[in-house]
Amino acid sequence: MQTSLALHTDKYQINMMYAHWANGTHKRQAVFEAYFRKLPFGNGYAVFAGLERIVNYISALKFTEEDIRFLAKQEEQYDPRFLEELRQFKFRGNVHSMKEGALVFPNEPLVRVEGTIMEAQLVETALLNFMNYQTLIATKASRIKQVSDGDTLLEFGTRRAQEADAAVWGARAAYVAGFHATSNMLAGERFGIPTAGTHAHSWVQSFMSEQEAFDAYAKVLPDQVTLLVDTFDTLESGVPHAIKTAKMLEAQGKRMRAIRLDSGDLAYLSIQARQMLDEAGLDYVQIVASNDLDENTIFNLKAEGARINTWGVGTQLITASDQPSLGGVYKLVEREEDGEMLPTIKISANPEKVSTPGKKDVYRIVDQKTKKAVADYIAFPDEDRPRNGKKLKLFNPVHPYLKKYVVNYDAIPMLEPIFVDGEQVYELPSLEEIRSYHREQLDLFWPQYLRKLNPEIYRVNISQKVWELKQKLIDSHMAPEPEHDE
Amino acid sequence: MQTSLALHTDKYQINMMYAHWANGTHKRQAVFEAYFRKLPFGNGYAVFAGLERIVNYISALKFTEEDIRFLAKQEEQYDPRFLEELRQFKFRGNVHSMKEGALVFPNEPLVRVEGTIMEAQLVETALLNFMNYQTLIATKASRIKQVSDGDTLLEFGTRRAQEADAAVWGARAAYVAGFHATSNMLAGERFGIPTAGTHAHSWVQSFMSEQEAFDAYAKVLPDQVTLLVDTFDTLESGVPHAIKTAKMLEAQGKRMRAIRLDSGDLAYLSIQARQMLDEAGLDYVQIVASNDLDENTIFNLKAEGARINTWGVGTQLITASDQPSLGGVYKLVEREEDGEMLPTIKISANPEKVSTPGKKDVYRIVDQKTKKAVADYIAFPDEDRPRNGKKLKLFNPVHPYLKKYVVNYDAIPMLEPIFVDGEQVYELPSLEEIRSYHREQLDLFWPQYLRKLNPEIYRVNISQKVWELKQKLIDSHMAPEPEHDE
Repeated sequence: MQTSLALHTDKYQINMMYAHWANGTHKRQAVFEAYFRKLPFGNGYAVFAGLERIVNYISALKFTEEDIRFLAKQEEQYDPRFLEELRQFKFRGNVHSMKEGALVFPNEPLVRVEGTIMEAQLVETALLNFMNYQTLIATKASRIKQVSDGDTLLEFGTRRAQEADAAVWGARAAYVAGFHATSNMLAGERFGIPTAGTHAHSWVQSFMSEQEAFDAYAKVLPDQVTLLVDTFDTLESGVPHAIKTAKMLEAQGKRMRAIRLDSGDLAYLSIQARQMLDEAGLDYVQIVASNDLDENTIFNLKAEGARINTWGVGTQLITASDQPSLGGVYKLVEREEDGEMLPTIKISANPEKVSTPGKKDVYRIVDQKTKKAVADYIAFPDEDRPRNGKKLKLFNPVHPYLKKYVVNYDAIPMLEPIFVDGEQVYELPSLEEIRSYHREQLDLFWPQYLRKLNPEIYRVNISQKVWELKQKLIDSHMAPEPEHDE
Repeated sequence: MQTSLALHTDKYQINMMYAHWANGTHKRQAVFEAYFRKLPFGNGYAVFAGLERIVNYISALKFTEEDIRFLAKQEEQYDPRFLEELRQFKFRGNVHSMKEGALVFPNEPLVRVEGTIMEAQLVETALLNFMNYQTLIATKASRIKQVSDGDTLLEFGTRRAQEADAAVWGARAAYVAGFHATSNMLAGERFGIPTAGTHAHSWVQSFMSEQEAFDAYAKVLPDQVTLLVDTFDTLESGVPHAIKTAKMLEAQGKRMRAIRLDSGDLAYLSIQARQMLDEAGLDYVQIVASNDLDENTIFNLKAEGARINTWGVGTQLITASDQPSLGGVYKLVEREEDGEMLPTIKISANPEKVSTPGKKDVYRIVDQKTKKAVADYIAFPDEDRPRNGKKLKLFNPVHPYLKKYVVNYDAIPMLEPIFVDGEQVYELPSLEEIRSYHREQLDLFWPQYLRKLNPEIYRVNISQKVWELKQKLIDSHMAPEPEHDE
């Protein structure tokens, strides 16, 4: 169904694949982990998304003849036998991942890829491209959801999205995080997301008068009449005309759904419009607002007493305008040497950029009494698994004296097996299942972790063993010898 | 070649199409113009891009049977005869557009669509989605190009791009504006853009030592060795190891191309690394830098004396991080009534949001002596065309007393016919032709319009007739009657 995106990757991946192939090291096993270091928007959590796209990408991954021809022409240094290897290429590794809708945190593996260095390297770029964008938008949408008090939220961003894929996958990410519908019909068709839409100023402009335009629209689509009232003058023209149309519908036994405000002071205009509608006996007619909204404008409009039932959110959401990228990275944590897997590290002058070596699992530690999450706990797969009754020491890896013990808890493994030896073993859940999982995830957290401004920092802790290995590898690379052999 | 994106549109477009159809007004002619109101990034100009994508989209535009089934299920109010109309749908209108690579300015039509209200309405969303993103990225790339002093510029943003289309079309937009290559192989395959790439930290990590990793890479791809030197310690480990590899290559009669710095203080590190390379007799080895670069960091690094030859620019460019959307809009300017075309306007409480009525052309007025652009001039097609010797009055529409006359000039029509009666009449230029046109466009402007900080504001003027019509329509809508008939 999906065409291969094998070349949706950076050239250096192909170069490294070639170099490993020519060096005879391409079949060596490697483990990579994808994670981000910093939460976006000053939020207390991120909402993981992008897995369905990643699964479809990996399943369909192959080099077409056209791809092979391009590579041969592109780089004369590539040996034809390498191109033959690519022609036979299929992803045969293992993938573990967070589930879509999960609340996730910095420096924990979100996707873990095990395979030959060649296949694990190839998928890096596209995997990050999908995960970074969809997780970013789901997180932004979740912030908006947090302030919405159950109001209806519509995703309206297509015209300002960064090209077509962003519009469509961004609409899906917003829906994962609790939006109710999108204006993008392709997202509706592909994913079954409810679609919503009213009419534009051009509808009004294409008639002799606003009244004629409203009446014509109501006549044709009587069951979903939302009238845009700001083409000429909201309170002097738009709302009075909409009231007349609503009365005409009432005479036919129909009820107008809503009016839409798209400019001006939305607090003032919505209060005035509400009063005009109520005085006309139209208390059932709702008010939709749009115009560069985000979680902060919505929060402030509500605090000002705006009478708005439905929010159409566009540009700010679909581009994550205040921080349009999530800095997700994909780091090698283990590699094969003489048939053995060795942990590996990347050092950096920036301490937060030093990677954590070794293949790792993530557990969410949930207090059995409160049913609330206490911390995420990262450990090696061959460690004793954390389990109820086994006292668990949680300590801050940056400040190890900040420690805490928990005893009565559930340790929920967060990374699901997705591919095993190249076979998809994970059944992609429906969007409704993902939304429901996301709501359960939110319920696991105390409100102080969820608020949009200055949230409490949720603990992400590593096991004693992980901490010790990291220190050991840092020390070995900081040794004074000019040669940094391990 | 391209699948139809007919449903890559907002639901309200389909609703309005249906409403016009049911109202019997769907065959009426309409003229829409796409433009933006404000330049992004505080820049003095924008670089128009997105036309190739728009042309492919319109050419391939049709509703598939799957689309029709989806619409039928989605909205039970739609009459089956309307769906039959969609099944027969083909774009049969006219499109005029700026050429890709053109320097463009606020409030001038960039794309003009004439057709039935139904077809002109359908294409709005996708057209804006493509134009807004690609123009935004080409403009951002152009700002980077302005400060680069002819250095090599590489687009490295795929992993942080907002999904796949943004990576690929963004790479193309950057190339239009003068970037030299992209890391995205799909962009290379689809558009013939040169591709570039080195290796990642994981290459170094997957060997027992950095030296072994460097030597292995150089052995396999000797003609394009760029070594990433910051995996452990740039000056203590990376650069000395790279120098040894370069010497090994010299012994084989080869020359190492470059080293790449990806973290730390790029000014300091590049100066030190340059000195170490020069002292080793490797003055031909270049220095590539990457790490969250944009036009400001590059400008400042150069001012600090950084010794960098090639800049790998990622996140900041591909997401236009400081302003991730261009606010392009698409407004109805003329509509058919009783067989006649009438100008139409959208009023707003925000004066800059009032649209300019009537179908319009754009001329670039170029002084015959200096060969530099003086102003853009917007007029109705049926006005006397501006031409050399005909004294042209330029006045500021907001402050009409600010006026100026020009006499010896060329008036270059900026809008090219692209589709006539649904037939593509414009031959898409090659990317190299677009790049060359873009350079010619830059040459038309004095440097003060091109600088990145506080540029001079270029004049975009409307004809006396356009100005008078706009005033007349504003007055008629501001009339005290509650009915706003025209």
